[in-house]
Amino acid sequence: MPEATRTLPNFRSDNVAPVAPEILQAIADVNRGAAASYGDDDYSALLNRRFSALFETDVSVFPVPTGTAANALSLASCVRPYGAVYCHEEAHIHTAEGAATEAFTGGAKLLAMPGQHFRLEPPMLREALAAAGWGIRNRAQPDAVSITQASEYGTVYPLAAIAEIGAIAHERNLSVHMDGARFANALARLGCSPADMTWRAGVDILSFGATKNGAMSADAIVVFDQGLVESLSYRLRRAGLTWLKMRYLSAQLLAYVEDGLYLRLATKANTVAARLGAGLAALPGVRLVAPVEANLVFASLPVPAINRLAATGLPFARRGQDVIRFVTRFDSSEQEADEVIALVRDATTGG
Amino acid sequence: MPEATRTLPNFRSDNVAPVAPEILQAIADVNRGAAASYGDDDYSALLNRRFSALFETDVSVFPVPTGTAANALSLASCVRPYGAVYCHEEAHIHTAEGAATEAFTGGAKLLAMPGQHFRLEPPMLREALAAAGWGIRNRAQPDAVSITQASEYGTVYPLAAIAEIGAIAHERNLSVHMDGARFANALARLGCSPADMTWRAGVDILSFGATKNGAMSADAIVVFDQGLVESLSYRLRRAGLTWLKMRYLSAQLLAYVEDGLYLRLATKANTVAARLGAGLAALPGVRLVAPVEANLVFASLPVPAINRLAATGLPFARRGQDVIRFVTRFDSSEQEADEVIALVRDATTGG
Amino acid sequence: MPEATRTLPNFRSDNVAPVAPEILQAIADVNRGAAASYGDDDYSALLNRRFSALFETDVSVFPVPTGTAANALSLASCVRPYGAVYCHEEAHIHTAEGAATEAFTGGAKLLAMPGQHFRLEPPMLREALAAAGWGIRNRAQPDAVSITQASEYGTVYPLAAIAEIGAIAHERNLSVHMDGARFANALARLGCSPADMTWRAGVDILSFGATKNGAMSADAIVVFDQGLVESLSYRLRRAGLTWLKMRYLSAQLLAYVEDGLYLRLATKANTVAARLGAGLAALPGVRLVAPVEANLVFASLPVPAINRLAATGLPFARRGQDVIRFVTRFDSSEQEADEVIALVRDATTGG
Amino acid sequence: MPEATRTLPNFRSDNVAPVAPEILQAIADVNRGAAASYGDDDYSALLNRRFSALFETDVSVFPVPTGTAANALSLASCVRPYGAVYCHEEAHIHTAEGAATEAFTGGAKLLAMPGQHFRLEPPMLREALAAAGWGIRNRAQPDAVSITQASEYGTVYPLAAIAEIGAIAHERNLSVHMDGARFANALARLGCSPADMTWRAGVDILSFGATKNGAMSADAIVVFDQGLVESLSYRLRRAGLTWLKMRYLSAQLLAYVEDGLYLRLATKANTVAARLGAGLAALPGVRLVAPVEANLVFASLPVPAINRLAATGLPFARRGQDVIRFVTRFDSSEQEADEVIALVRDATTGG
Repeated sequence: MPEATRTLPNFRSDNVAPVAPEILQAIADVNRGAAASYGDDDYSALLNRRFSALFETDVSVFPVPTGTAANALSLASCVRPYGAVYCHEEAHIHTAEGAATEAFTGGAKLLAMPGQHFRLEPPMLREALAAAGWGIRNRAQPDAVSITQASEYGTVYPLAAIAEIGAIAHERNLSVHMDGARFANALARLGCSPADMTWRAGVDILSFGATKNGAMSADAIVVFDQGLVESLSYRLRRAGLTWLKMRYLSAQLLAYVEDGLYLRLATKANTVAARLGAGLAALPGVRLVAPVEANLVFASLPVPAINRLAATGLPFARRGQDVIRFVTRFDSSEQEADEVIALVRDATTGG
Repeated sequence: MPEATRTLPNFRSDNVAPVAPEILQAIADVNRGAAASYGDDDYSALLNRRFSALFETDVSVFPVPTGTAANALSLASCVRPYGAVYCHEEAHIHTAEGAATEAFTGGAKLLAMPGQHFRLEPPMLREALAAAGWGIRNRAQPDAVSITQASEYGTVYPLAAIAEIGAIAHERNLSVHMDGARFANALARLGCSPADMTWRAGVDILSFGATKNGAMSADAIVVFDQGLVESLSYRLRRAGLTWLKMRYLSAQLLAYVEDGLYLRLATKANTVAARLGAGLAALPGVRLVAPVEANLVFASLPVPAINRLAATGLPFARRGQDVIRFVTRFDSSEQEADEVIALVRDATTGG
Repeated sequence: MPEATRTLPNFRSDNVAPVAPEILQAIADVNRGAAASYGDDDYSALLNRRFSALFETDVSVFPVPTGTAANALSLASCVRPYGAVYCHEEAHIHTAEGAATEAFTGGAKLLAMPGQHFRLEPPMLREALAAAGWGIRNRAQPDAVSITQASEYGTVYPLAAIAEIGAIAHERNLSVHMDGARFANALARLGCSPADMTWRAGVDILSFGATKNGAMSADAIVVFDQGLVESLSYRLRRAGLTWLKMRYLSAQLLAYVEDGLYLRLATKANTVAARLGAGLAALPGVRLVAPVEANLVFASLPVPAINRLAATGLPFARRGQDVIRFVTRFDSSEQEADEVIALVRDATTGG
Repeated sequence: MPEATRTLPNFRSDNVAPVAPEILQAIADVNRGAAASYGDDDYSALLNRRFSALFETDVSVFPVPTGTAANALSLASCVRPYGAVYCHEEAHIHTAEGAATEAFTGGAKLLAMPGQHFRLEPPMLREALAAAGWGIRNRAQPDAVSITQASEYGTVYPLAAIAEIGAIAHERNLSVHMDGARFANALARLGCSPADMTWRAGVDILSFGATKNGAMSADAIVVFDQGLVESLSYRLRRAGLTWLKMRYLSAQLLAYVEDGLYLRLATKANTVAARLGAGLAALPGVRLVAPVEANLVFASLPVPAINRLAATGLPFARRGQDVIRFVTRFDSSEQEADEVIALVRDATTGG
């Protein structure tokens, strides 16, 4: 790594973030003597209660190491091996999880569809379901819809859209899964309650992301539809995802939601992204690929400009030929956004 | 939980242990700013180098959340869906992992066999392999042998036995997997090098346990047979086991082996177990089910004595009708062993 | 193949049988013009009606190409991926189907147990279920019992034993599967009705063998528990087992049961086996391994005698060191039995 | 079914065909006494020899009951669980096999792409492979390309297109699978040798359809790449697809190719389809959806015309809103084609 890059902002991914100090402290705090294993400890008992309060309904919470585990196991709990999952064609479960959902469901099918701004569109979903071949043995049978909130491109579903998708799905007895790898960023954007963005809008099971937003290694599956819990709990066990020392996972998640920490962290990331997005959009030759509604900024630039930008050592991800991605975090700063804007300006103007 | 139990020693499992302070400190130490994700950080690079030095050969190391994940994914990397794994009938993979190995291999078969002191016996393995139905399409084809070191009952394979099993397996082109959930305890017992207990004796892939012996949530797969790495790495990804913030896992494992910490921790657990085993064996009416060679003590007691013991609030696990299990840990003490011996004495003498 | 063997009786397996003339004729009879595919033809509609009459209850019938397909798909319809199937340790599903059940269930576990004369013993089953670890996430959860009627060694469960197994299973909400690869032979032996030997005794789903007893390539799954039909039908489709031209399969099965043909065929096989068994049992040095109750004869002989017998070119199968197997068929004759008895006599008396 | 429909031509599917008399006779001819089972009989030995002569190279032939079994097992033999299969978005494996390929591969991914006239286009395949994310653990890794010859819409790949796809695939070490459900129809169209249309153009494994074109229940997997045979043979066994009485399957396939029977049968079907296609294309208001190159005719009609046509009782299949499908067979006649043309003419002209 060239020396220069060390001091440049790193907006490559929110996966590069450190752990929020409050969460690290919580881990240290539970490190006292023996505690029951496999989730029978006091902290883990507290986890279900605390999240039930947060979501204003009885939920079951299962900490998992990654969003992929959360998504694939969630879907395995509500999709039959001969079932199908409807999702956006850019959904992480479809493009970037190594076919984990196909593996854990025993070979179900992901049916991906387009949709403006990387969101599923209710009318298209309705049409697709109408044409699904219900009861025809050679067609995978619709079992679930999966939406990503915030989406992989940083757009956020309005509550009404989620509710419409939920209604369409439930009419047909499909489960609704939300990939909430950036749940807090979406929630901060909408300013609604966790309940409003999930079960009240029809979400049955949620991949609750925390790792990208300040936890160490603790995402979670939050189950609203209690009928899914038993199957899920066995599937987690045989996936090697039942933690021996669960207290350390529970502690992370408890601290994450304590006093709204998760929202404060997400709000910071969103704020920096908004500033970055606005700054980039104002540059000649730069076009935002999607509205900046969470902590992700996708911009289209001329290829030579991208190459010049890369030459500066600034870390970023590429998507296709002429699109680059920046991701802000809870520990990002407005000053970093301004630095990046300046670098992009230089690159696009031939610098 | 009754008040009394809080002050009694908790020998129910090594899963109840806290995290060793050195490991907690290591986690805090790596919590500095952004770092590359998915194992591309500096600590994770160091992990492979450090473990290669420790094992005196090039190894690949993959942190995983649990021993079940380590075992099932290890075996999936070397067993075909139509393959078979030979193991002891008391092997954890066979009795207590929710058929994780069957799941991750795509339906391979575990062929379990008896063996004195809960260890596979080389002559029985040789016979079983000779009768395996090689090339017969209706028989699962032998692909791997799995041994547990230390065993589920706390016995330890001598190096010569591992080497003999390794030779038998390799003669037939089987892979050799070691379930080392209590690897350090076995190593401390034998006083040999990690290399001697693994690849030099024919082990191809190792479930390297650390969580029971002081880590927080970090076991690892250590691969000696580099031909298994590619398949394993994809399987881990789709199992949701590729860590976003791998540095926090790598840090745990690095600290765990730094300056022999893992051996010091295991030695303490073994010492307390030895004392406990000797004390119990000397009691009338008490019989050890297996020699105490690591940190596990299994004792047979009259059922009424077990009931009296349970009534004291002392935590322990039961195995079958008249057998109880105690597990000691790095944070256990000789005094705790003596307390337990006294409680068992009281229980067996009618208290 | 040496010339001599061509004229010796071939009791190697009932799989070597030709097709019964009545069944071949039925195939020719349905070969008239176009007919709806995938089971929507008239013959296939008749199949369910005819078998429902035969079994005196509403059944669903699914023709399959082999007994392995019948067994594995039947069990997949009633066993969860994290479930377990109880069976005899000599059950074909456990020893000779290439782990098909593990594959189609998504990695469920077969829990095999001993039992006199190759039959599951109700008290042992009851005990095993009591100790099954219900609700414990690291244990495969009991979902089904599978019994083979007639057994792999030619013994037959009395109706009372089936009923007892059925009651034990249903008490615990397990499904009861019968592997009826030699269903007709068992039925002929017991002289009861198909209903008595199946659903009235608690059987929920049946692998109905026909191929070994005169069909061409048509076994069937007969479902008594209608709750299993939907899942089964999808699983068959994705297993590639939904026949395009089902009429040719339906025709075989219809002819097979027409006017009791299947029982006449099985009775002939049983009669020849009984004669063979009695003849062999009377020879010095020969011991029957199990009572001859269907069309299978297992005999223990001195190894040198087995070698001498093999040298004559007589086809037979070996099981272990000193056990040989003869299987009689609908097209076998008493004279063939006598020939084999004579050859074994010669071999055991040193030829 | 209304009386009238009985006398109308049935062009609904080639699955409604009877068995060709030559093939029925061949089945009767092998029905003589005992024969070795599981493919060890003389006819089955002959099968590999005969097909090797037909294909002018050493091949292994495995009879299977359906095209779905042929496709899914073929692909399972050359695709890793974390692999991907490239195919056309209208490929039968993707749209109409109940996710059989996903199931048998252990959860691999089908990557479907568009292509004119329902054929994969080499340049698009090349681009897709270039962008596949080789070595990236969160992307399914390209393992195979599957093409359908003739395609699901009756178009036929020219030899040069197959060869180009084969070259692109092999450059990247992908296997090439051909779904030949209508292999004979394509071959008859091209007038080339079986070798030219398969391995000489880069095909590694072939689903060889026979059932739609006159066999009873016998498709086959024909393996050119001998490295795939071992894995395939075990997978077939555990899929329940190893025939007990294989001679009856082998006999069908032997008769099917004897003296070019399969080509004569296919040529007849193609001829009738060509006549039907030409006749329909000449009607006002009717548009062919794809060129008629095999035995399938897809025509676009005004919806009211389709409804009027359906009201006549004529059997046909619908695809989407305004498209209907006719399939001709070896036992179809030119007169039937003319009848259908007349009915469609009446329907489109308002009847």
